[in-house]
Amino acid sequence: MSDFNLDWQREARTGVAEAVLCEPKTPAQIAAILDAAVARGARLLLTRLAPAQHDALPGALREQLDFDPLSRTAILGALPPGKPIDGALIVAAGTADLVPAREAARTLAFHGRAAPLIADVGVAGLWRLTEQLGRLREARVLIVAAGMEGALFSVVAGLVAAPVVAVPTSTGYGSSFGGLTALLAMLNSCASNVSVVNIDNGFGAGRVASAINRA
Amino acid sequence: MSDFNLDWQREARTGVAEAVLCEPKTPAQIAAILDAAVARGARLLLTRLAPAQHDALPGALREQLDFDPLSRTAILGALPPGKPIDGALIVAAGTADLVPAREAARTLAFHGRAAPLIADVGVAGLWRLTEQLGRLREARVLIVAAGMEGALFSVVAGLVAAPVVAVPTSTGYGSSFGGLTALLAMLNSCASNVSVVNIDNGFGAGRVASAINRA
Amino acid sequence: MSDFNLDWQREARTGVAEAVLCEPKTPAQIAAILDAAVARGARLLLTRLAPAQHDALPGALREQLDFDPLSRTAILGALPPGKPIDGALIVAAGTADLVPAREAARTLAFHGRAAPLIADVGVAGLWRLTEQLGRLREARVLIVAAGMEGALFSVVAGLVAAPVVAVPTSTGYGSSFGGLTALLAMLNSCASNVSVVNIDNGFGAGRVASAINRA
Amino acid sequence: MSDFNLDWQREARTGVAEAVLCEPKTPAQIAAILDAAVARGARLLLTRLAPAQHDALPGALREQLDFDPLSRTAILGALPPGKPIDGALIVAAGTADLVPAREAARTLAFHGRAAPLIADVGVAGLWRLTEQLGRLREARVLIVAAGMEGALFSVVAGLVAAPVVAVPTSTGYGSSFGGLTALLAMLNSCASNVSVVNIDNGFGAGRVASAINRA
Amino acid sequence: MSDFNLDWQREARTGVAEAVLCEPKTPAQIAAILDAAVARGARLLLTRLAPAQHDALPGALREQLDFDPLSRTAILGALPPGKPIDGALIVAAGTADLVPAREAARTLAFHGRAAPLIADVGVAGLWRLTEQLGRLREARVLIVAAGMEGALFSVVAGLVAAPVVAVPTSTGYGSSFGGLTALLAMLNSCASNVSVVNIDNGFGAGRVASAINRA
Amino acid sequence: MSDFNLDWQREARTGVAEAVLCEPKTPAQIAAILDAAVARGARLLLTRLAPAQHDALPGALREQLDFDPLSRTAILGALPPGKPIDGALIVAAGTADLVPAREAARTLAFHGRAAPLIADVGVAGLWRLTEQLGRLREARVLIVAAGMEGALFSVVAGLVAAPVVAVPTSTGYGSSFGGLTALLAMLNSCASNVSVVNIDNGFGAGRVASAINRA
Amino acid sequence: MSDFNLDWQREARTGVAEAVLCEPKTPAQIAAILDAAVARGARLLLTRLAPAQHDALPGALREQLDFDPLSRTAILGALPPGKPIDGALIVAAGTADLVPAREAARTLAFHGRAAPLIADVGVAGLWRLTEQLGRLREARVLIVAAGMEGALFSVVAGLVAAPVVAVPTSTGYGSSFGGLTALLAMLNSCASNVSVVNIDNGFGAGRVASAINRA
Amino acid sequence: MSDFNLDWQREARTGVAEAVLCEPKTPAQIAAILDAAVARGARLLLTRLAPAQHDALPGALREQLDFDPLSRTAILGALPPGKPIDGALIVAAGTADLVPAREAARTLAFHGRAAPLIADVGVAGLWRLTEQLGRLREARVLIVAAGMEGALFSVVAGLVAAPVVAVPTSTGYGSSFGGLTALLAMLNSCASNVSVVNIDNGFGAGRVASAINRA
Repeated sequence: MSDFNLDWQREARTGVAEAVLCEPKTPAQIAAILDAAVARGARLLLTRLAPAQHDALPGALREQLDFDPLSRTAILGALPPGKPIDGALIVAAGTADLVPAREAARTLAFHGRAAPLIADVGVAGLWRLTEQLGRLREARVLIVAAGMEGALFSVVAGLVAAPVVAVPTSTGYGSSFGGLTALLAMLNSCASNVSVVNIDNGFGAGRVASAINRA
Repeated sequence: MSDFNLDWQREARTGVAEAVLCEPKTPAQIAAILDAAVARGARLLLTRLAPAQHDALPGALREQLDFDPLSRTAILGALPPGKPIDGALIVAAGTADLVPAREAARTLAFHGRAAPLIADVGVAGLWRLTEQLGRLREARVLIVAAGMEGALFSVVAGLVAAPVVAVPTSTGYGSSFGGLTALLAMLNSCASNVSVVNIDNGFGAGRVASAINRA
Repeated sequence: MSDFNLDWQREARTGVAEAVLCEPKTPAQIAAILDAAVARGARLLLTRLAPAQHDALPGALREQLDFDPLSRTAILGALPPGKPIDGALIVAAGTADLVPAREAARTLAFHGRAAPLIADVGVAGLWRLTEQLGRLREARVLIVAAGMEGALFSVVAGLVAAPVVAVPTSTGYGSSFGGLTALLAMLNSCASNVSVVNIDNGFGAGRVASAINRA
Repeated sequence: MSDFNLDWQREARTGVAEAVLCEPKTPAQIAAILDAAVARGARLLLTRLAPAQHDALPGALREQLDFDPLSRTAILGALPPGKPIDGALIVAAGTADLVPAREAARTLAFHGRAAPLIADVGVAGLWRLTEQLGRLREARVLIVAAGMEGALFSVVAGLVAAPVVAVPTSTGYGSSFGGLTALLAMLNSCASNVSVVNIDNGFGAGRVASAINRA
Repeated sequence: MSDFNLDWQREARTGVAEAVLCEPKTPAQIAAILDAAVARGARLLLTRLAPAQHDALPGALREQLDFDPLSRTAILGALPPGKPIDGALIVAAGTADLVPAREAARTLAFHGRAAPLIADVGVAGLWRLTEQLGRLREARVLIVAAGMEGALFSVVAGLVAAPVVAVPTSTGYGSSFGGLTALLAMLNSCASNVSVVNIDNGFGAGRVASAINRA
Repeated sequence: MSDFNLDWQREARTGVAEAVLCEPKTPAQIAAILDAAVARGARLLLTRLAPAQHDALPGALREQLDFDPLSRTAILGALPPGKPIDGALIVAAGTADLVPAREAARTLAFHGRAAPLIADVGVAGLWRLTEQLGRLREARVLIVAAGMEGALFSVVAGLVAAPVVAVPTSTGYGSSFGGLTALLAMLNSCASNVSVVNIDNGFGAGRVASAINRA
Repeated sequence: MSDFNLDWQREARTGVAEAVLCEPKTPAQIAAILDAAVARGARLLLTRLAPAQHDALPGALREQLDFDPLSRTAILGALPPGKPIDGALIVAAGTADLVPAREAARTLAFHGRAAPLIADVGVAGLWRLTEQLGRLREARVLIVAAGMEGALFSVVAGLVAAPVVAVPTSTGYGSSFGGLTALLAMLNSCASNVSVVNIDNGFGAGRVASAINRA
Repeated sequence: MSDFNLDWQREARTGVAEAVLCEPKTPAQIAAILDAAVARGARLLLTRLAPAQHDALPGALREQLDFDPLSRTAILGALPPGKPIDGALIVAAGTADLVPAREAARTLAFHGRAAPLIADVGVAGLWRLTEQLGRLREARVLIVAAGMEGALFSVVAGLVAAPVVAVPTSTGYGSSFGGLTALLAMLNSCASNVSVVNIDNGFGAGRVASAINRA
């Protein structure tokens, strides 16, 4: 019996191609999944693919992957024809929040959507954010990635009417508890146009934003 | 100095009228806010307004409110002209999850959107859900309210391509920890088109769904 | 043996008179402490004195108390000669945060310091806060009380150079966990001029602000 | 005095041979236990035996072990004569849940029971599960291993009348909290024919299923 | 639309009649469910039905219920013909653990199974338990209810080869955390024939034991 | 079958008479236990007996009880002949910690040991404690009850060489989490002659101190 | 100024020599402390001294240490003249609990007390414990080390009248949460002659047992 | 677009130069920030800069940094002209608490303030602290760093009238939970002149103390 059982008809049926969470898999399991996708000519998004996992894949497979080590994502197969302006915007509170922010951007790209990314606009220097007010208000859906106390979610969401998808990140130390504090902060936002995904889950945020754009 | 400072220009500026969380306020504070709204001719949505708080308001104010005791919401002012078919759908896992589900429905109504509600479709009897597959797939945005183990979120989200806004509810006992288990389950859904709001926060889910519809 | 053993020499020795946390005490225990203070001519600040506890005190003692039911504080003895402008400012995020905010104000008054209070300036409507920027920047020490996601702490602290004493409040529901979320948010603030006291501890914030003013 | 004190009479007395949790033991301690078992001709099941621990055992002992690196189990001694069809079925939600699923299968084999394993049937693609409905309903006891939000437990248990033993797994990240979320989800299942063992405890699930089969 | 959607065909299809968790429902909702069951001639088990909820039901419905206030259960409809000796045994650690223990016994009775109950055999006086060793070893499945430190689970399970279904109870105070300590203790039992249900979930334990008996 | 099964031979066998935790029991259950004890002429210590539970007992039983409402303890039967000076000393940090402190004193009295109690010696006014240094150093075993941050445990234990039994109390609010903070503080004391019992468990502390005195 | 400030007069003043927790210290800091002790001719107990830390000490210091790698303790200076029979007994539930059990034994030895150690007597095979009943009942103070569900504490304490010092250990996985489950179990023991020290704190248990023996 | 967006005008505007948290950044990101600062002639404080991160910086940048490996801080640019006596005092409970204590001292130095540091004055040997009473009482603001049970905060704060900034540290093991216990202890201090920063956040404590000195 096989170790995996992918939903190869998903893209035809729903328009959303498969993605594979690589972190808990062995290189052999990942390679087997890639072989099956190549055999079918299917597209795949690989997430949480550590550089060491990537390096352990057979060279012939590696060559077919578009690997981004910062976001730990790899894309198999061509991107859909571009839709450069679709109204999504990604905001990262600090430099360390770029990892999930870029995972979200890569996920949107895999689904044929382009989204600009604004970095390092934490609330301790509010002018950095208000400088960008025009761009924030033009977006039709925003992804905001922040760690530590997660105040950026409420501040951004209070400035716009569009839906905000919050990605709490594991940035921080001590009582940040690996992103739990940012997660709780977002769930309790005094702004009401915010919903939340798992800690560091840029992939999920990209999917939700893509689904919102389709809706 | 006043105890409150509402954002009366919000509806003109953003199209989203003000809402007031009543739970932590005294009847006198709520009445003062209502008086100010009436004086300005402003619309207001009151949430988490306990029947006892409602009964303690001056009669003249009570008469101007459309109060729904089950969802503990009250609406001041006329509803916007209806948009009966806007593609939102609300799903409640069990009878006890109807409270936040109806809070979401009332919030959508306050914003001029109508949303049907499907009740008692918990996953232990999966046929109850699959019977509704057509309606689930037609929706452009879904709100799903569930407590206990929150399995309904993943099952519904796996059946549709639209964005799903999950409302974990405090239904349950023992290790449900007042909704924490359902909340954690949603954050870790193996379906990726789901985002989450606070426990029992039907209001937030309605706002997010409304913002998605606008987007 | 007596149930209590107050530090009657504290004011003479340190300039800071005694305060008594009433919540876990019986009215008889509170009355005995008040009798001892009256006998010595000592000043006292009573905190967390519920109206029912206050009403159960002997009338002769009640008459000597300046009781404020909103903040649940009572003061025995004359206030020190006023120092109306000492540079402390109290900010409350929402109406429900006024209870600890007023407890802080009363504590400062007991120590002979006056502090104005700005209410309902939550970050979801940022203009309410930035309107007050002048007053915020003039203050030499600020007390900020906020519940829910506690974003106000970081935003205020980012706008000023003075020390900010944060009071997380138990305002909220669901995953606010009785103020824990706001507390964690403050501890992880990206602004670095903030320190924190216990949930709802307006008294402690008042004491710290008073000690800072003395320093 | 010896470091260990195994229950060598257990199999004769109860029909259930001894098992040894190796994770917290040194190779020297494990080897001493194996030597004692070999001396008595006793069978043993070793669980959580890391490959590095296995490799550090004396070669003469290693040769007598049937070691399975994926499930980290080793069996000393012959398996009981087979009972190939005993009605147990093992279901694993995803590829990463195979580790405890196989630990359960190995434990059943050690007790002379064979159990087929269905892999990668997570609820996000429900058709993968409903395709197997016939096999699910034929089983007399099911072991289900799932991580993340653990929705598979409720869905499987709702489809069958047999007892389901749930194994929450540590698959996931962020707020999966090392399997805690899946564990809580199972404890709060809206299906009532489910009971739970510790996170990643495939061994315990195998033992419980074996005891149910004997009952 | 109806608030509820029971699985009336369940008993015909699976042999297991419906049960209704009453705690989060209003008396009107419970009465509507009972009316529908009476109209169909269906049997029902009501659990967590508080005496006040029971008293608020219409008299005509109350007369048809067999209500047990200690376990807060009510049964509508006749019990199946008895199977007095089916090998289930219920053990309660202390007097306070009798509530979930009796809920389990009532659930078994609703499913046509009789189970004796041994009470007050906590491990601090081990002789009380070892006196009952014969009865413990004869049982084909055991339900053990215990709170506080939950040591009884491991001790009983170590004495028998049959499967043990553990019910952690909310008995205790301080760091028992409403049954969490007993729950965690059971999950970590050094005996391996134990599986666990939710805190105070005697109903679930009864269902699992009944399913084991059918298996 | 009876609801209870007391260890009536315990005093004869071990010298320690039975105690009964009343909190989770009904008055009828408590009365049945008392009747059985009276019938045997056995001594009993009742703990966590709320005044309302006490008042609901039959008058004839109440008359035989020595009830102390502050510590919620009742003693049935004569006290052993006194051993007034046995070297135990009880220290309570604040007025609110007197409840478990007196429960400990009553437990020691039930076992024939007298222990003086020093109250209101919290570390914020260290001179109150150091004044008592002589008495602290004479004690052969100390019980210290404190809530909030529990600093008194470490300070007292650092001043003496005798064993200290710490009782964390539920005094406090906010992040005291019902005594959890004090409990954790004690477990991490930098003094090494301290061991801990459950939150508010003055009874357990009395038992341990009595066992130490016997040792 | 020096990094450390040991209490060199402690042994003369209280009879208890100094101990040093090495885990968070650099080898240079440990060496400096040892040099100071050697210069004064003082005895020292080093705890949580990892083999790598020990190996990094200067050879001249290492030669003066009696290092035990299993318990990670080292003793500087001669042991006090022996008191071989002092009534302390150490019990370890499983092989993995030997580390803190031996830390306790070494601590007692440093204080001139000898204590035998009984290993591998977990409650799943109760006969292993009851075989030792005579030795258990002769002890004047017992140290019990156990992880996982910690049932051994209650069982041992229920069998003896002497004080039991419980050491929860970090043995276990999944929901054992690094010893937290065992710790909570002990705090909630239904036996009342038990008190608890920190997780894996065999040193503290040895100190408390030594203090009890002195008392 | 750049990964970072520093507030270069901060020092001119507020008198407080920028600081950069290095832990979650790559050496390339840190180098880019340093290059930008050097280009502007700006001063910078780098915190949580691991030695490995420091070693990976280009040599030309490393030469311009004043790096302190113990506190993991580096300073770029000249220190402000000294204010050697400004009334701040830093107290560290144990040797292991020196890391955040020195981070606080370095932060104060970066802001032109000198603060002496008293080490190893834990409360288990209270005389070490009371010896320093004069210095403690002269300070105008105190920083206290302690781990484990954090009793030092309350004891120091009870001895002085000045504001105390508490830094809970991650020193400890088992139920110290990485500093959480010390953090909770401080938040619940019975002394009221204490406020708290995040675990191990010596930088924040230095900033708060500096802001208090400016106030």
